[in-house]
Amino acid sequence: MRIVIVGGVAAGMSAASRAQRFDPAAEIVVFERGDYVSYGACGLPYVLGGDVDDFGALVARTPGQMRARGLSVRLRHEVTGVDAAARTLTVHDRGAGRAVTEPYDRLLLATGVSPTVPDWASSDLAGVHVLREIPDGQAIQASLQDAKRACIVGAGYIGLELAEAMRARGLSVVLLEKGPEVAGRGFDLPSQRRVRAELEKNGVDVRCGTGVTGLTGKGGRVSGVQTEHGLVRADVVVVAVGVRPNTGLAQAAGARLGKTGAIAVDIRQRTSTEGVYAAGDNAESVHRVTRRRVHIPLGLTANRMGRVAGVNMAGGDATFPGIVGTAIFKTFGLGVARTGVTQAEADGLGLQAISVDVSSTDHAGYYADARPIQVRLTGERGSGRLLGAQIVAENHISAKRIDVVAALLHRRASVQDLFDADLAYAPPFSSVWDVLLVAADRLNRELRQG
Amino acid sequence: MRIVIVGGVAAGMSAASRAQRFDPAAEIVVFERGDYVSYGACGLPYVLGGDVDDFGALVARTPGQMRARGLSVRLRHEVTGVDAAARTLTVHDRGAGRAVTEPYDRLLLATGVSPTVPDWASSDLAGVHVLREIPDGQAIQASLQDAKRACIVGAGYIGLELAEAMRARGLSVVLLEKGPEVAGRGFDLPSQRRVRAELEKNGVDVRCGTGVTGLTGKGGRVSGVQTEHGLVRADVVVVAVGVRPNTGLAQAAGARLGKTGAIAVDIRQRTSTEGVYAAGDNAESVHRVTRRRVHIPLGLTANRMGRVAGVNMAGGDATFPGIVGTAIFKTFGLGVARTGVTQAEADGLGLQAISVDVSSTDHAGYYADARPIQVRLTGERGSGRLLGAQIVAENHISAKRIDVVAALLHRRASVQDLFDADLAYAPPFSSVWDVLLVAADRLNRELRQG
Repeated sequence: MRIVIVGGVAAGMSAASRAQRFDPAAEIVVFERGDYVSYGACGLPYVLGGDVDDFGALVARTPGQMRARGLSVRLRHEVTGVDAAARTLTVHDRGAGRAVTEPYDRLLLATGVSPTVPDWASSDLAGVHVLREIPDGQAIQASLQDAKRACIVGAGYIGLELAEAMRARGLSVVLLEKGPEVAGRGFDLPSQRRVRAELEKNGVDVRCGTGVTGLTGKGGRVSGVQTEHGLVRADVVVVAVGVRPNTGLAQAAGARLGKTGAIAVDIRQRTSTEGVYAAGDNAESVHRVTRRRVHIPLGLTANRMGRVAGVNMAGGDATFPGIVGTAIFKTFGLGVARTGVTQAEADGLGLQAISVDVSSTDHAGYYADARPIQVRLTGERGSGRLLGAQIVAENHISAKRIDVVAALLHRRASVQDLFDADLAYAPPFSSVWDVLLVAADRLNRELRQG
Repeated sequence: MRIVIVGGVAAGMSAASRAQRFDPAAEIVVFERGDYVSYGACGLPYVLGGDVDDFGALVARTPGQMRARGLSVRLRHEVTGVDAAARTLTVHDRGAGRAVTEPYDRLLLATGVSPTVPDWASSDLAGVHVLREIPDGQAIQASLQDAKRACIVGAGYIGLELAEAMRARGLSVVLLEKGPEVAGRGFDLPSQRRVRAELEKNGVDVRCGTGVTGLTGKGGRVSGVQTEHGLVRADVVVVAVGVRPNTGLAQAAGARLGKTGAIAVDIRQRTSTEGVYAAGDNAESVHRVTRRRVHIPLGLTANRMGRVAGVNMAGGDATFPGIVGTAIFKTFGLGVARTGVTQAEADGLGLQAISVDVSSTDHAGYYADARPIQVRLTGERGSGRLLGAQIVAENHISAKRIDVVAALLHRRASVQDLFDADLAYAPPFSSVWDVLLVAADRLNRELRQG
């Protein structure tokens, strides 16, 4: 049994180690086009900001450590073609400068996503970046040496994390967003506004509703960003306007893409092509709240899909349980989290949803250092089903309470189930009625009246 | 409709405000034997330690505020007798020094618990205390003025919180515990040992397996505690060896007590006597994991029972959902939490339980200030059911993650359900595989092998 994995980051390396654990006799080969495998890509912005010491700290295991465990990891090997009938790959060895043909019995495409690069950003100017892999981070770090003015384009999670990192480095920061608010469609307006206020409080110049039309340069280096509302001067620009799944090999293998544009897979991570699996940021998953296929590329999902694919490729039987749309980020002091669907998403799906907003403190108001926390909870009229939650917490770690709702959503619980939960109380940890319980109580009342 | 409530703290005041909301026309009278109503008793140790400014900060609403909302609150009124056939109470008005007879249509006994006082502690010596109500706290505070050596007897939650408070005040502290370890039977040995290490690291002299036999005094003031293993010198002693439910009135009303010794109630908080309800620390509840009646007096439970009783007394229909045994406390830097049953409790109940212990960091190890977190997860062989969890976290607030397990236990979820949950991940909040997921994965493996 020869298991070949294309891509050596989250899903790919999870699959490799699971497959090996399940069938130690299998030959497992990982081809990675880059210089690094098994690193925490989500940590990249934090190296730039100084919360992580260096890029090397993100690497969980080196290729040498992998090899010692019996996995064959080949860096700088880009898979450029696939013949699904013959079960062979064309692999370009960048080091040796030649292409070889490699056979497989089972193939995993863990090719991830690439940053979207709009036409205006296709530029040879120095100081214009995206952030996806370690070399991108290293390039930004080099650009920051003499930079004073940063412009971040796109106010999604990565854009927000970058804005914070640049401020931490002492740069002035302009954050441009084409849409009406920051933090993307994953949040309703109250959460978005709270995030924007935090950015502005920390000196980020936030400009929403501002499309970019071009770049200006001087002496081969970027000098500004042209927008619909004038020029933003900048000596470093990071474009973080979204990602697209890398599906070229999947298509070459004849595998079907889903409506989202990502690779369609079943719950065993199998594509529509025999012997070919897909896992990670390039693949669709099923949203357990909406029962729809979605493309929400995030770290835990990628690792989990990789495990499932690894077991199945090695002859086992594992299934991916779906997601409920949980996400979390930190922006300066704030922790911001979501799970399930927002009110806007529920409306878009035709669900009869109601949301309530509750403000409280993360622990007993009379106990030292109580900090504000806001919860928006969304439920369904009629069924009383819990649909989603959003949390904004000034003690950022308290946003992690979203997990309580996430775990319940996974079980399709009701708002009443949340209210009935025996949550932990002591004054240094919460109010006697945890803010989640207060929100569930209020939402229950609205659902009964509505 | 005349609703009379005996006891004006957690359950009593929750019942009063709920009853009034449900039936604004009802006459609602609260008799409280003490000088305060509606205060956070769980905050008392923190006033002594300085994390709460003063005792007044614990009071959520004054009697005047209650009256403005139409509730009649009578302080220093002790209910000393009940005639359940006639539906009358004997009330001793301590201010006026006379007893009156008061009628009721519905009666709520929210009489709470009293600290257990062993024979050796029945003493007239100054400087010997229990801690249950605000005046107890004030008395301890007065004793601390000139005190240098504190001895806490009993290493349950309150004893531990007091030990920390006394250390914060600069006293030397000896903590005596009759049982083999600190933190009581609510935790298995690994958690208990970790708590003991934290106490010792912070200068608390912990002596387990040490029964107390008497007190020594000098000039009317306590000077030491006699133990099985010698004398402990102390100028302030707090006895925190447990509590017993205040059931005298319930018994006088002919209401049945449960096997636990607390008042037996149904899910509507009704006692066995027509028209008489009980709620709060004096009442039993049902444990949803073990399906047994238990007496676990805690703040959220008391408030929740009070709400249920209030609605039902006012003519509505509410039910108490039961508990899953969740509790949390802070001791110095540590957050310590539990839910469900421990391995020892499961063994005692004849359940086929297995536990795993997992150590990790509360967030990504490469991100600044990652702190150790330990999780013990317990599940049932055969069924795969989740039975309980214990968490010890050096970033204390991270112990609140126990709520994820608590919410799932409420729904009788499996270990697999926990593992499948789409928990929130970003480097400042957790590892990509949250420690709860790592524990669930390992426990699943053990359950399959076991």
